Amino acid sequence: MIIINFNEETITSKTVFKGNILNLKVKKVKLPDNSQGSREIIEHSGGATIIPVTTDNNIIMVKQYRKAPEEILLELPAGKLEKGESPLECVKRELEEETGYRAHNIKKLFSFYTSPGYSNEILHLFIGEQLEFTSRNPDPGEFIERIIIKPEEIMDLIFDGKIKDSKTIIGLLYFLRGDYQC
Amino acid sequence: MIIINFNEETITSKTVFKGNILNLKVKKVKLPDNSQGSREIIEHSGGATIIPVTTDNNIIMVKQYRKAPEEILLELPAGKLEKGESPLECVKRELEEETGYRAHNIKKLFSFYTSPGYSNEILHLFIGEQLEFTSRNPDPGEFIERIIIKPEEIMDLIFDGKIKDSKTIIGLLYFLRGDYQC
Repeated sequence: MIIINFNEETITSKTVFKGNILNLKVKKVKLPDNSQGSREIIEHSGGATIIPVTTDNNIIMVKQYRKAPEEILLELPAGKLEKGESPLECVKRELEEETGYRAHNIKKLFSFYTSPGYSNEILHLFIGEQLEFTSRNPDPGEFIERIIIKPEEIMDLIFDGKIKDSKTIIGLLYFLRGDYQC
Repeated sequence: MIIINFNEETITSKTVFKGNILNLKVKKVKLPDNSQGSREIIEHSGGATIIPVTTDNNIIMVKQYRKAPEEILLELPAGKLEKGESPLECVKRELEEETGYRAHNIKKLFSFYTSPGYSNEILHLFIGEQLEFTSRNPDPGEFIERIIIKPEEIMDLIFDGKIKDSKTIIGLLYFLRGDYQC
């Protein structure tokens, strides 16, 4: 077996922008063949998302305007990790803020990078059952509508471009497997 | 039915960075309640990715180091759209550059935003069959290893954190449904 050292050692790192949501760095790196390359890198604190399953086996989702693509998107509830917050705490908080529901049975599934070619953002995916309505309390500046989706609608919504957020497609395709135990 | 105007009108837009892979803009926006907000936005040209299925019903994947998460990731072949290139042309080119294979039967599945909270990057997902090996020809500065994955390995690889790239998880979960016709 040949062990290839793929790693790219940082030669220089320059912070171009520090924002509320993300930082941007440009790094000069040493490539495996000793040549040099440049990498544009977004640093993001990561987040958590949840598949909230009702007793009828439907999914609670949210509709919200996203400025980057300039579109209203249909997504699973999700949010950014706050400082010192665990993914589980984050996902419970976001579910309640965005939909008004608490999930009394939550299970972590797996984690993934949204766009590792240029961003270190990692999302932690959960599934939640035994939902109880408390009250909605979106963040100031968040305008969100709650939508209930039936399992049999999901594939058409994805193929028709009505659902086109990566974390949401991952959660829903996983949910459709039907092999989870919460 | 209540029509809610969720849109966020741009008040000012400032380009903070123009790079090879991405641009960063900071936009001041008018929120639905007439208050103002700030949005940090990555502009990206988008890309295409493919699920290459062998005659044995295995998947051809690639391993490559990703500087943003500082990890070697196992991914579906993919790449950025070049100027004037269609998603289909892009995915054929990237498949051959990264794996050495041509797919004689390719079908577009659907498209998705990788991280619409801050980026407009859209990826177009294809599935390809009737693979023919020609020759590998990675871009300068790309160091890529080809890996064959069996369908029965996929869920363990995802849950064990061995596959953690969003586009790859979407493609593989879709493939496992087994209901595509190429």
